[in-house]
Amino acid sequence: MSIKKVKAAVMTEFKKIEIQNFPYPELREDGAIIKMIMCGICGTDKHLFEGRHPAPLFVKFPLILGHENIGIIEDIGNSAAIKMGVQGDRLKRGDRVTWYAGILCGECYHCRFLPSNHAATLCLNAKGYGQNLSCVEEPHLFGGYAEYCYLLPGTWVYKIPDDMPDEVAVLTDVFAATIGVRKAMMPYPVLKEGFGPGDTAIIVGSGPIGIAAGITARISGAYKVILVGKIKERLKIAEEIGVFDHIVDIDEYPDFWERSLYVLSLTPRNVGADLVVECAGVPEAVPEGLALLRRGGVFVELGNFLDTGNITINPFSDLCFKDVILIGQWSCPPQSFDVALKIMELSMKRGIPLAKLVTHKFNIEEAEIALHRADYMKGVIVP
Amino acid sequence: MSIKKVKAAVMTEFKKIEIQNFPYPELREDGAIIKMIMCGICGTDKHLFEGRHPAPLFVKFPLILGHENIGIIEDIGNSAAIKMGVQGDRLKRGDRVTWYAGILCGECYHCRFLPSNHAATLCLNAKGYGQNLSCVEEPHLFGGYAEYCYLLPGTWVYKIPDDMPDEVAVLTDVFAATIGVRKAMMPYPVLKEGFGPGDTAIIVGSGPIGIAAGITARISGAYKVILVGKIKERLKIAEEIGVFDHIVDIDEYPDFWERSLYVLSLTPRNVGADLVVECAGVPEAVPEGLALLRRGGVFVELGNFLDTGNITINPFSDLCFKDVILIGQWSCPPQSFDVALKIMELSMKRGIPLAKLVTHKFNIEEAEIALHRADYMKGVIVP
Amino acid sequence: MSIKKVKAAVMTEFKKIEIQNFPYPELREDGAIIKMIMCGICGTDKHLFEGRHPAPLFVKFPLILGHENIGIIEDIGNSAAIKMGVQGDRLKRGDRVTWYAGILCGECYHCRFLPSNHAATLCLNAKGYGQNLSCVEEPHLFGGYAEYCYLLPGTWVYKIPDDMPDEVAVLTDVFAATIGVRKAMMPYPVLKEGFGPGDTAIIVGSGPIGIAAGITARISGAYKVILVGKIKERLKIAEEIGVFDHIVDIDEYPDFWERSLYVLSLTPRNVGADLVVECAGVPEAVPEGLALLRRGGVFVELGNFLDTGNITINPFSDLCFKDVILIGQWSCPPQSFDVALKIMELSMKRGIPLAKLVTHKFNIEEAEIALHRADYMKGVIVP
Amino acid sequence: MSIKKVKAAVMTEFKKIEIQNFPYPELREDGAIIKMIMCGICGTDKHLFEGRHPAPLFVKFPLILGHENIGIIEDIGNSAAIKMGVQGDRLKRGDRVTWYAGILCGECYHCRFLPSNHAATLCLNAKGYGQNLSCVEEPHLFGGYAEYCYLLPGTWVYKIPDDMPDEVAVLTDVFAATIGVRKAMMPYPVLKEGFGPGDTAIIVGSGPIGIAAGITARISGAYKVILVGKIKERLKIAEEIGVFDHIVDIDEYPDFWERSLYVLSLTPRNVGADLVVECAGVPEAVPEGLALLRRGGVFVELGNFLDTGNITINPFSDLCFKDVILIGQWSCPPQSFDVALKIMELSMKRGIPLAKLVTHKFNIEEAEIALHRADYMKGVIVP
Repeated sequence: MSIKKVKAAVMTEFKKIEIQNFPYPELREDGAIIKMIMCGICGTDKHLFEGRHPAPLFVKFPLILGHENIGIIEDIGNSAAIKMGVQGDRLKRGDRVTWYAGILCGECYHCRFLPSNHAATLCLNAKGYGQNLSCVEEPHLFGGYAEYCYLLPGTWVYKIPDDMPDEVAVLTDVFAATIGVRKAMMPYPVLKEGFGPGDTAIIVGSGPIGIAAGITARISGAYKVILVGKIKERLKIAEEIGVFDHIVDIDEYPDFWERSLYVLSLTPRNVGADLVVECAGVPEAVPEGLALLRRGGVFVELGNFLDTGNITINPFSDLCFKDVILIGQWSCPPQSFDVALKIMELSMKRGIPLAKLVTHKFNIEEAEIALHRADYMKGVIVP
Repeated sequence: MSIKKVKAAVMTEFKKIEIQNFPYPELREDGAIIKMIMCGICGTDKHLFEGRHPAPLFVKFPLILGHENIGIIEDIGNSAAIKMGVQGDRLKRGDRVTWYAGILCGECYHCRFLPSNHAATLCLNAKGYGQNLSCVEEPHLFGGYAEYCYLLPGTWVYKIPDDMPDEVAVLTDVFAATIGVRKAMMPYPVLKEGFGPGDTAIIVGSGPIGIAAGITARISGAYKVILVGKIKERLKIAEEIGVFDHIVDIDEYPDFWERSLYVLSLTPRNVGADLVVECAGVPEAVPEGLALLRRGGVFVELGNFLDTGNITINPFSDLCFKDVILIGQWSCPPQSFDVALKIMELSMKRGIPLAKLVTHKFNIEEAEIALHRADYMKGVIVP
Repeated sequence: MSIKKVKAAVMTEFKKIEIQNFPYPELREDGAIIKMIMCGICGTDKHLFEGRHPAPLFVKFPLILGHENIGIIEDIGNSAAIKMGVQGDRLKRGDRVTWYAGILCGECYHCRFLPSNHAATLCLNAKGYGQNLSCVEEPHLFGGYAEYCYLLPGTWVYKIPDDMPDEVAVLTDVFAATIGVRKAMMPYPVLKEGFGPGDTAIIVGSGPIGIAAGITARISGAYKVILVGKIKERLKIAEEIGVFDHIVDIDEYPDFWERSLYVLSLTPRNVGADLVVECAGVPEAVPEGLALLRRGGVFVELGNFLDTGNITINPFSDLCFKDVILIGQWSCPPQSFDVALKIMELSMKRGIPLAKLVTHKFNIEEAEIALHRADYMKGVIVP
Repeated sequence: MSIKKVKAAVMTEFKKIEIQNFPYPELREDGAIIKMIMCGICGTDKHLFEGRHPAPLFVKFPLILGHENIGIIEDIGNSAAIKMGVQGDRLKRGDRVTWYAGILCGECYHCRFLPSNHAATLCLNAKGYGQNLSCVEEPHLFGGYAEYCYLLPGTWVYKIPDDMPDEVAVLTDVFAATIGVRKAMMPYPVLKEGFGPGDTAIIVGSGPIGIAAGITARISGAYKVILVGKIKERLKIAEEIGVFDHIVDIDEYPDFWERSLYVLSLTPRNVGADLVVECAGVPEAVPEGLALLRRGGVFVELGNFLDTGNITINPFSDLCFKDVILIGQWSCPPQSFDVALKIMELSMKRGIPLAKLVTHKFNIEEAEIALHRADYMKGVIVP
């Protein structure tokens, strides 16, 4: 065993982070050792850290947080080199890669029977980097807030395109989370039943996922993309990203109805958007989004990944009369990393300054501070 | 003008019915005079009668209620004979027919741009028999609680198959309302993303629409069909209809969680239904139905046609985590009468005793009494 | 090693079958030994036997044919008992089961990226019982024309419902092949874009798959189901099955146009079927089926599983002007066995005499004779 | 009646054009008089001119050709001003507009029952500017190769955005014809079953429709767009348009297999495109396109609008084994003009030089010459 030590930020209980050292891992035939470049701090990390429902049901202590990972392959086993590279490439030392946070068993009823986007949801034996893979088990390094990460068999590893900066590549998981925009094309888009090129999209929520959803809608041919959000710093970055036709600051229109009427006035014929994507992750964003959707439109709910409270809706006016198709999106399938990387490449070609989304960098020792702060767009841990 | 008089039950204000006589109508080139056989009393009629929200926004007094109509063509204009018969048949005196309640303008933005199921929703100039066509306008007879009904140009008229009893034919509108079951097949049914043959359906609500939804699911190849409802008389008829694998009486399982667990235990692998159709038309049926749906399933909301109150839902557990596709169904397109008639024919061939759904017959004078009662499955007005 | 011997019909080269004895297999932790009850003789078996293109590209000699298998678990390893039972049940000795013929690697690009129905197509490492699993490898018994069959890890095993006769259960693979009927519901069935309840289906081809497709269409709510086929014995059985509204004998209408006009006259409004399923497996059935499809309908091509020749079509009249959605179906995903078993159960409940499809039983020694004959509906090998 | 004369190019029989003068039309309440700006010369015009099958079945002589029209409203009746403006705007003198070539009856079975894209196909009473509206009927001016055009009730009129040059606006019908790209998103694009953002598209055919299809695919989020075509002048313009990642000149790769292998090598993993759009309108482009499609991909056939001959395909390898979803697209619904205009606006915003597609301008007297030539990208008639 190597005598090299690996530093990591370990959550030992809710709301508590300790810096610990772990032995440098021994490589197995079916595994890989990654030297971390960067790990995004996800809103989910903050929820897990705070122990919000349902985190207590699946988090296993002690835990190294971090599932939005990019790094360099420092060493890789022979079978892993062939099997982990899901794009068909043989992986090798020195490759710059990102990987899907979940490892699915592939054998339970749900993995076998449900399409991949649901398998990610329902696999009875799913393991998640930075989530339920405790560092109590060897080789310990199962989260991104660390100098190294160890990849287990079954991990979906994607090579990062050479010309993509680290600050863009680290957003792959964020863009994968917007797969609901593509899913919204399902209900036969020709006849205005689903979202398609030429349609109008409203994004509720100005965090990284909201911005990424807006970019995805734009890349997918949206005629107009409108952002409804708050926090001045975030809206300023949204403006610099340059894909939004309109950016509506909730603080400038604090009254719900006044704001709704204003946003509706920005949509063709004032009837509301063909697609609304809720990315704010607060309960009240759901009725807000429904109010901005045209009758017969598609509503994608992907913000409320952890329980942040209840809402009141009216089944008559919000569902029946609205003639809505509402898609609740749980997680994203591992295949969506492929779509995400391609949308990010297309964005770069169009000159969209994606790297601006990464506004704050922290080292491992600062992880706890970073989890307490809420004043940045996307923070990352850089070892 | 004929001196013959036509009797009708007229709603002169909310909660008030008067029996009035109208002149027998003069036939126009583009119209038809129907001798009423029977008119179903819809739950919507009761809501309109009571003036529930949003009835005051569109009901026009005085009004002859009744939109679930069947009758005999007593006279028909030349152009109407060609144009009203939507199945391509030329209509003639003596034909037994039913007709879609709405008349769409075909010229507004919504009629032109949205698929027919939404046109029915959004047409800016839509007229509805028994709803917003007041009897103050000549020739007055625009509702089914009467001896005759006058059909305006643009009405979608369907011939009733010869071997279909009146008590079955009068249910066409009810079966058309279950078009959501067919709509639920949309999201690519092969891979358990939508409802298809071999899947399990739960119907919440044991009124006529709930029973019809169960029959439609059965005819569509459902492996199991489960009914959750109450009111002993209704559940008894549901049993006689014979298409339900299980009928769950809410009164026998008054506790929500106990009931939910029991119903889930009736579904394959206890994970919930692939399809839930909410037909109860009470707000609390929505969370009930969501609790009975498997993750990744389809939920069709078609019960809350008028505003009966709010519900509380949790965007995390009810939408995101549920990975739900929720289809809010507003009204049904006029084309769904075609599907409805065919499903009713198939039901008859399979020996399903559809006519049992019509449990009470009232004459025109009894209309007000009928609207006050709530103790029957499907009541009809027979002139 | 046991001294018990296992008899099997072995294809040693194209058009040649030998009866050979193999040692009774030794059970491994991840495998299962099945005592064969019955094995269906598939049209594909005959094509493989005859060495038609592309059989030479993947058949590996010596080969025990037979992939439509049912049997009793005689012994099963511990991990296999947990993992092979795809419906979530733990398998055990004595269970009567059927299994999907293909074993997919789950790790290649195609298994990871394409939905399961395509994985079955494209897996780079797929193994198939009775197809490319040669009996030269131990434990040899990889085809159904034998007394025993050995199941390898990764096999999808389904328990057969207790009340389902062997002669029905042996048809699971045949019914799974009709998954295209369900797939045809995809293009939004509400507005007559795809196949749904109330629509009319025409099946071209009166072999077992054609009959099964007709049953599946009927179970799925088809309003009319029409069969076009030949061979008197097959049409007689089709009649006894009782799900077809019309059976058209090609020999009675030998002229293509005369026959087409007659079949069209059996469809609503004479415009052709909403769905045509080509199950004849001869090239000329494709233009025949296209001629019987209404404009805007769905055509499912699942008959031409091996190369039986070319056809001439006109891109203008057969594709563009026809406004067709044509679904080429390659194989069926392993999940379709679940749908198949449920449709067969529903058929039994409706009194459809499925077992009549099995018209001829042969013992292992008669395998070569059985492969030469073409005069039966469905033949089976019974050890 | 005005004494002003209106000049038009009249097709008096196949292959014969005469310049004639017509009286300036009298305006009716429900009509509009358009001063023509420009009319595109469609490939269909050439086919009609040459009398190719099935032109003789529906062309009515004498005929003013021209259905890709833009012009200025010179006068409009009161009811037309309200009803023709399908985007909800009231039309008025001076508006610059384009209009859909077909007028649908809205009353026949097909108009009522089939979704709008099929209604355009099947309406029993459809009238088409420049196609079956003969100039023998008053007010004569029903085609675009003229100084004025008269619009009948039921015409779908779209205002042209102010900042869109005439040379772009005249392409609306061309872009509307690429609606199949949007239609290809239908089969649930999440799991690589249909076309969606991040996927690769191959366009076969380098005429105006092929270029427009490529632009539509690019605007819709295609990762790679590859053009296969010939005629140097056209490929040069395709290059200038700037949306194609690769342009393959058939003349440089005259051998079918060599060319196919080269094009496949341009697609991710060399397996072929997720979407192929056939826009060449020659029979042999169909097998060419099928060879370039990955298994499980979507093929849109929209080129063979008139009968240009037969092809030979192999049902096994081209349909079943290919696991293809093939969408034959007949015409485009009138609503697709809305999508087309928006895609053109988005293209302009991205700096795509759409106007370069219009390479040749002819005056009315030159119409016959223009119809004989085949050496330009898009020719237009400018009165």
